Parts: sequence; structure tokens; C-alpha cells
Amino acid sequence: MTQRFKITLEYDGGPFVGWQRQDNGPSVQQALEEAITAFSGETQSVQGAGRTDSGVHALGQVAHFDLDRSIDTAELLGAINHHLRPWPVSVRSAEIVPEDFHARFSATGRAYLYRIVNRRAPLALDLGRVWWVPVALDAEAMAAGAALLVGHHDFTSFRASECQAASPEKTLDKLEVRRSGEEIQVIAEARSFLHHQVRNIVGTLKLVGQGRWPAARVAKVLAAKDRSAAGPTAPPDGLYLTNVTYD
Amino acid sequence: MTQRFKITLEYDGGPFVGWQRQDNGPSVQQALEEAITAFSGETQSVQGAGRTDSGVHALGQVAHFDLDRSIDTAELLGAINHHLRPWPVSVRSAEIVPEDFHARFSATGRAYLYRIVNRRAPLALDLGRVWWVPVALDAEAMAAGAALLVGHHDFTSFRASECQAASPEKTLDKLEVRRSGEEIQVIAEARSFLHHQVRNIVGTLKLVGQGRWPAARVAKVLAAKDRSAAGPTAPPDGLYLTNVTYD
Repeated sequence: MTQRFKITLEYDGGPFVGWQRQDNGPSVQQALEEAITAFSGETQSVQGAGRTDSGVHALGQVAHFDLDRSIDTAELLGAINHHLRPWPVSVRSAEIVPEDFHARFSATGRAYLYRIVNRRAPLALDLGRVWWVPVALDAEAMAAGAALLVGHHDFTSFRASECQAASPEKTLDKLEVRRSGEEIQVIAEARSFLHHQVRNIVGTLKLVGQGRWPAARVAKVLAAKDRSAAGPTAPPDGLYLTNVTYD
Repeated sequence: MTQRFKITLEYDGGPFVGWQRQDNGPSVQQALEEAITAFSGETQSVQGAGRTDSGVHALGQVAHFDLDRSIDTAELLGAINHHLRPWPVSVRSAEIVPEDFHARFSATGRAYLYRIVNRRAPLALDLGRVWWVPVALDAEAMAAGAALLVGHHDFTSFRASECQAASPEKTLDKLEVRRSGEEIQVIAEARSFLHHQVRNIVGTLKLVGQGRWPAARVAKVLAAKDRSAAGPTAPPDGLYLTNVTYD
């Protein structure tokens, strides 16, 4: 009897070409599929809620896959994590779900965290885990700019040219910027996001933070519906998929 | 005119044999001395406040060195950090100090943080940065055991056999254990520590946390003045030198 499993996982995106299987290097999807084959002998495909790019991390990615053989979730967790070594991927929890559950299509919300370390000194312990911005950033100005993006909009200005979404219209439920010491965090929540949407937003807010653009310009960037009107794409290092929600 | 500089630095201890120069691999001290030579042309020795072991990290190590040529601290910071690449070492601040300042001998206090991640799922993002303990730990029991070690004691039971300190007596000013979610942090403060003292204490408190030893046994371990009475040495990965104080 085939059972469908939902897993929640954490990973360091650094060594991967991204979530999705590609010919040019290791992917998180491939690491998981190979771990599943290693303990079950089955060849199963794993579907993820968010197709994170190369270098993007996850604290709460969700994925699903089927297994023909019967296994309880505690045993599954031990076996999959064992066979994921030495990849920096860890399955935090697993549960059996109905066969119509789909990690990507059933998701009703996604949350991302973007971490900036704003200080003169280069990174040491946080290398690859945050975006180092040595010029002083005004987090309050960034927050004011961010507030102009919340709601239902055409986000063409923040959409990668390779984006495959049917429509550039998305509803951004939350976009908050807060500083704690030398770290600035941007928290973004929506039902779904366009390709590079969070990183393009962060790259724009950084220009506001350093005073090159007034916060009000963010509204003009949005209205332009033109990718070249916005700032550059922020690096993947600071981005974390933190949570995926389901009804 | 020779000037003495005090620097405060952060590093990932993972790629190093430790703070101190050794024949068997790269050290933080060597990385700093080579960076100084690279921008100044001078061969100067760097003295650190704490001789952290291989794999032990620093958020606030302090060191000093002399320079014969004149340089202001902002220029020094830029130059030294530039030449430290690609080592994961970052100098956070620099100041000119009197010529009798000594990073190690003038220090009046040192603070360490030990991070444990206590969960079933293996590490992904925190690999090499924390001690992963998959068995459930009772942080309150650990805190009760820790309280028995605060004060002036003969810490022979927690002292590495290679320790070169003149006396096994130390005054532990603070030893706190606290849990936040899946992370348990041990904070230790003293004027100075014996070799492996924090890691041997943490290895002992872990046995208390998992219920193998009652908290009260920590007092007996201390009284035994015998290294074999205490628990094993906790791994270096979770240890951070966070702060060094001077009068």
C-alpha cells in the first residue's frame, strides 16, 4: 500500500545548485531522492514546496514523496537522515498525509527571512549565511519602503526574466524590516512568490537603506512594471525559506 | 616610533589547529601575523588573550601587536582584513594602547559561550558551530549542577592533563545554563580558565542533563580533584570565546 509522506527540512544551500535537480551539480532534491532509494530500494520523486535557488537556505522547507513499503515515521526520519550524510540537509519531522497532499500545490503560504549583517568588519562565522553590507543602512527607511509593497500588486519590477509564473500579480501579506544590533532582517510572507522576488525586493530596499533612493521611490519602482527600474538582485546567501503553511 | 595595537576579532575555528602557531597546520595567530606582514612589511608577533583550541570559535578574542610604521586604526582595519582573506577571521575593531598593555596578561576577565543543539534531527546549517546532542537534556538539572561549580575551587577534575597553569585553583564568577527552544547555552565567566575547563564542565553537565548523574554529583566530581571523576570533554564545535575584559 503506497503511503505519502510530508517532510519538513533544513538545509545549507551553499553546496547545492538549488532545490531542483539539474545536470550541472548536486541539488537538495537529488540528495533526498538518493537517500530514499538507499534505505527503501525504491525510486521515488520528491516534490518541494519552494524551488530555492543555489545558495539559498531552508529552515522549514516542506516536501512530499511516496513509499510503497510500509515504514513508521520515526524509522523513516532516522533512515533518511542517516543516508543524507554528508550533505548539510536534515529532515526535522515527517508525517503521513493523504494521497492528494502536494507540497507545492497544497501550500497556502510561504515565509522567507533575509539576513543582512551591516557592519564594517567582514564576515567570519556567518560567511555564506548572510549578506554583508559594509555601508551604513537605515533600517527605518527600509521599513518605510517595504510598507509600500505590501498588498496585491503587479510585481513585474521584482521578477526575474526566467520566472515561469503565469501572472506577475502576487499578494504580499507581510514585508517587515527590523534591526537587532548589527543584523537587519527582512521577513516576507505570501501565498507564493515570483522567481527572485524576495532577493530583488531586498536589493532595492538596500538602496533605500543606504540613502541612495528615498523610500517613496519604491512605489515608483513598483508602478514602473519594469525589472530595470528596481535595484539589483541581493545575493542568495542571506535568504532562508523559513516556513510553508497548509490549510 | 613603535605603537602597540589592541584588536578585537571574530573567527571560525574550524579550519585552524587553534589560536597558537603550530607546525601541524594553520593557526589564527599565523594568519594574523602573515596579514600584518603583507600590508606593513614588518615581522611582528601577535599575542592573544585566550589560546583557543582547534575548532573553537571566537566572537570577541583580543590580541595585541606592535608596528614600527605609523598607521591610523581605520586604515589598519581595512588592510588587515583585506590580507586575512580567505581565512574566516575578521578584525572588528582596533585601538592604540600603551606599550605595557598585554592582551593575555592584562586581561581581568574572560567569557565563553557553549552552544548545544538538543534535538533528534541532525545539524544542517549549524554543522561545526554547535554540539549536537540528540538525547533529551533537562536544562534545569544542568543549571542546578552548574551552580555547584561557581566560586573559588580546585578544578583539577576539569583540567586537561596538558594544562600548563601554575595552579588548578580558579574562581568561576558565572556558570549559567539556559534553554531557548532547541538550543541550550552555557555561559562561563572567570578571570582565567584551565585548559579544557569549559569543555570538561559542559561534558559533565551533559551527563546531568540526560539524567545519568544527579545534579548533586557535580559537587562530588569537584571534590574528587581527579579528572577521571568528571565527564568527557565536550567537542570544540560549540565553544566561543565571546569577550575579554581589561581594567
